[in-house]
Amino acid sequence: MIKITLITLGKLKEKYLRDAVDEYAKRLSRYCKLDVVELTPINLSEKPSQSEIDSALLKEAEMIEKRIPDGSVVTALCVEGKANTSEQFAAFLDKNTNSGKNMCFIIGSSYGLSSQIKQRSDFKLSLSEMTFPHQLFRVMLLEQIYRGFKINEGSTYHK
Amino acid sequence: MIKITLITLGKLKEKYLRDAVDEYAKRLSRYCKLDVVELTPINLSEKPSQSEIDSALLKEAEMIEKRIPDGSVVTALCVEGKANTSEQFAAFLDKNTNSGKNMCFIIGSSYGLSSQIKQRSDFKLSLSEMTFPHQLFRVMLLEQIYRGFKINEGSTYHK
Repeated sequence: MIKITLITLGKLKEKYLRDAVDEYAKRLSRYCKLDVVELTPINLSEKPSQSEIDSALLKEAEMIEKRIPDGSVVTALCVEGKANTSEQFAAFLDKNTNSGKNMCFIIGSSYGLSSQIKQRSDFKLSLSEMTFPHQLFRVMLLEQIYRGFKINEGSTYHK
Repeated sequence: MIKITLITLGKLKEKYLRDAVDEYAKRLSRYCKLDVVELTPINLSEKPSQSEIDSALLKEAEMIEKRIPDGSVVTALCVEGKANTSEQFAAFLDKNTNSGKNMCFIIGSSYGLSSQIKQRSDFKLSLSEMTFPHQLFRVMLLEQIYRGFKINEGSTYHK
């Protein structure tokens, strides 16, 4: 069974978001081995300077790098990434699953991801031109992964 | 205080989605009078024909029409709508709020919205090229409305 690693920053604060993630994790267990890695984000003041932000992103990048499983296809989630339809994303999942490639998705903190991570990723993906809380974003991505597997098995979940 | 009507089809089945909507409704009460209208979708079989779908969408359109408040700026959520950044969407909220215009947002059932509704709307908005469950979509839209108000008051919520 293919392994999907989701690297995220920060714990989910809201119970409804944890419940949503748990629900999708349960549903996904039929299709992949899901590993959600929650790293501790670097603490920043209320109004950090750009250099404080850059330095935090760099430290976070080092933590993230260590948790990317060797040989997995790495996708960074970022607003400048490519927008996919759900069908295109399903085809991406299908291609990797069929060639036995594990996948790793990376969602940054509320300040995003350092360019270091974006550059070392195989793909950059955008879910929306809008900015969402990175915590809700986690639910949105898991839903698209689940939807992708359902599309690939020809289910009516996705109409 | 400006009134925002959100017309949706179907009750939220999952508790975590109801909790999420309640949370955003609470937060939004500082900025607008939010009215969430939940209409009962037309029942369809597991694999409906296109004409069954069209007929259901038409009946749903009639129910929706009756609930659109007179004089409000109407936005239909649909995949062929315009993609906005959060800042552009905030500017849209700001413009209507400043001119005292109530707003109405319409989210269809899992089969979408009839062309009748799309044509009578003032705007068509797309949150993503991807398809999301219309129930999760409700949370995503409320989050963007909340984010928009926070952007407009110059808060640090949106970085």
